[in-house]
Amino acid sequence: MIGRKKMSGFASLMEIDEAIKTVKRHIGFAPEVELVSLDEAVERFAARGIIAPYDVPSFDRSVVDGYAVKANETTSASPTNPLELEIIGLSKAGSVPGDTALTKTRGTVEIFTGAPLPRNADAVVMAEFCKRTDEKLNVNKPVAPWQNVSRKGEDFRTGEPIVRAGTKLRGWHIGALASANIIQIPVYSRLRVGILSTGTELKEPGEEIRPGEIINSSKPMLKSLVKEQGFTPIDLGCVPDEIGAIKAALTEGLALADLVITTGGTSLGGQDLVPDAVTELGEPGLVVHGLYMRPGKPTGVGIVQGKPVFMLSGFPVAALVAFEVLVEPVIEMILMIRKPPEAKIRGRLTRRVTTPIGVRSYVRVKVARDQAAACIIEPLRLTGSGILSSMTKANGILVVPEGTEGFDEGEQVEVTLIDAVENLT
Amino acid sequence: MIGRKKMSGFASLMEIDEAIKTVKRHIGFAPEVELVSLDEAVERFAARGIIAPYDVPSFDRSVVDGYAVKANETTSASPTNPLELEIIGLSKAGSVPGDTALTKTRGTVEIFTGAPLPRNADAVVMAEFCKRTDEKLNVNKPVAPWQNVSRKGEDFRTGEPIVRAGTKLRGWHIGALASANIIQIPVYSRLRVGILSTGTELKEPGEEIRPGEIINSSKPMLKSLVKEQGFTPIDLGCVPDEIGAIKAALTEGLALADLVITTGGTSLGGQDLVPDAVTELGEPGLVVHGLYMRPGKPTGVGIVQGKPVFMLSGFPVAALVAFEVLVEPVIEMILMIRKPPEAKIRGRLTRRVTTPIGVRSYVRVKVARDQAAACIIEPLRLTGSGILSSMTKANGILVVPEGTEGFDEGEQVEVTLIDAVENLT
Repeated sequence: MIGRKKMSGFASLMEIDEAIKTVKRHIGFAPEVELVSLDEAVERFAARGIIAPYDVPSFDRSVVDGYAVKANETTSASPTNPLELEIIGLSKAGSVPGDTALTKTRGTVEIFTGAPLPRNADAVVMAEFCKRTDEKLNVNKPVAPWQNVSRKGEDFRTGEPIVRAGTKLRGWHIGALASANIIQIPVYSRLRVGILSTGTELKEPGEEIRPGEIINSSKPMLKSLVKEQGFTPIDLGCVPDEIGAIKAALTEGLALADLVITTGGTSLGGQDLVPDAVTELGEPGLVVHGLYMRPGKPTGVGIVQGKPVFMLSGFPVAALVAFEVLVEPVIEMILMIRKPPEAKIRGRLTRRVTTPIGVRSYVRVKVARDQAAACIIEPLRLTGSGILSSMTKANGILVVPEGTEGFDEGEQVEVTLIDAVENLT
Repeated sequence: MIGRKKMSGFASLMEIDEAIKTVKRHIGFAPEVELVSLDEAVERFAARGIIAPYDVPSFDRSVVDGYAVKANETTSASPTNPLELEIIGLSKAGSVPGDTALTKTRGTVEIFTGAPLPRNADAVVMAEFCKRTDEKLNVNKPVAPWQNVSRKGEDFRTGEPIVRAGTKLRGWHIGALASANIIQIPVYSRLRVGILSTGTELKEPGEEIRPGEIINSSKPMLKSLVKEQGFTPIDLGCVPDEIGAIKAALTEGLALADLVITTGGTSLGGQDLVPDAVTELGEPGLVVHGLYMRPGKPTGVGIVQGKPVFMLSGFPVAALVAFEVLVEPVIEMILMIRKPPEAKIRGRLTRRVTTPIGVRSYVRVKVARDQAAACIIEPLRLTGSGILSSMTKANGILVVPEGTEGFDEGEQVEVTLIDAVENLT
């Protein structure tokens, strides 16, 4: 099978892209949809395309304060040869369209920003290019047809899409939906993501730790990552390294959540406790076990009751990388949502990066601008998959693809930014 | 004064960077700080730097399953000449550091991932490079000192910073804080941002509209933008274009909010209703009125009771641009937070962009990859400041600086991405 090779410790490792496709093939649930109000819709994902129910704007209107005219009457207007018009009315914002009209040649209607254009008018001269004396107006400048006019349907025509399905709704989408008076938005219900830790030695944050015990940092990290993506984390607790306890917790978690993430127990003391538990829970069970990635090689995925169970490493950085390169893309496929653009930057490596061939490696880097404003990229020496300081000290991630063994000192590479770039002084 | 020029309609326009500095000089309030739990801290802004209260990890531990050894005993180990060791103990995750020890030469202790390194050991051989027979172990590969060991304090040493003040907390920061058992995080209280609309013709979303009336789309848009930034929007309603009503609403809003954003009424029918209201509310009053930017020229800022009042255009796109280039940077200065990196991309313009000199222009563009995967950038023709479809159809913003009149067709330019880039088929 393409992308499978024999590697010690795992029966068959898989490349990341193949793993994503494999999981997709087995998933058997459709995401739920709910209606939310305009005020609640920002950062949610549109579950359907939404179209304009009527033309927006619904009438021709002025975008400036000035005077409504027939453009062709103004062609020769200039400061030395002004066009004299008679002011025959006023159109204010909120006036009913059609209530005012240019009923005679060389007539004009004073008009405010947002007000309906009078009948027979096809342009607006800005007030600053006019001189008014009582009911007479001198126009000093010609206007083109439809100049300073926002036309009916210019923003959205009836039936035109305002947002497409899968769009992550930003502030301007909310504004556009409001302008069409759409106040109930169909969005995907927040995915419920269960998070289960395994590890006899783990203590929860806030508990007192005795020597040799460690704080479970992966669970609060994953809960936060899930929240950042706009989904709902469900804390399934922490179970000891016993297959019975793991099976019971997974069964409970799958009843509560749309998908489950576990940490630890993927290759423990020679035993694959979580993968074994998933296999015992039913068909198809384990579909991915071991990935050609670093960190995160022991990552696995199972499918139980049509729902994915992502088995991540107990090491926080490995779990973080697997979340970003495996869990997120699978969720994007389930919801058919588009990933927002990532900030990337190119720069020069300060030293050589060596990685194993055949493995996709994620190297934490520090990106800075030197005195000449050139972008320089320093690989961090802390590369252990347990080392969260390599993430908090990094502001970028360098991906080394499967087909290469790394990059040379001085080579230009592109990295994904996770925090602001600073200037070296 | 630098950056001020005479332009029709406004007494004195200002460049954006000068406006930000001007506002900063007048602001007279300090942001509030609160303690939140780990689970609530993601996407909040750290109000202080947070340091490690003890070494993380707090003991030397194994990062693999294997056997703890003295590295210098393994130097000649190979498959043909294995090193034979006696297995004298077991270190499990959760064991107390120091409970096991290499008490003799040629001894080894079996060790699991996360378990404390036995005394006298300085490395771990992975299980897959060993062959075990009862209490005897054959080691087939040498290890270097501290190989496969995560050292005490390797992640964070006592007193070392885990997060810096002003950091927007991401999932990995939460994990790092958890690993140091820090469960109460000092963050800035969510800024309360009041939003007040002015305009007699405006209807709220969901209300029935009569011909000539329009839906207030700027207020729901701004509320959503404020939420996206992690702040709390306070809806101050919509008041008619009357200076008394505006003053009353501003006074109420300033009592409820840390800062206020108004839309509309900045240059209405020749009257500057909101700027006049702000001026009447007290010193220093109006400090910015009119910006060299497009869209958004009529933007103003006042300071009342030390709090900023941002007076944005009633046109949604102008309000959006002013929010991003003026309101956000001022807030970042107040909280001393670092702006997260923006996604940017370079590409070739499909047609000429012409903008007025002396004005910073924000042009909405469509970025795509052509058949050859080259990035092409098409300026959208809809450029009216009322046209929200120019934002929903755009996936990028091209900034044309004050000193240039635009860009030529075919020129390489850099744009900020606001949505994913698509491939042309």
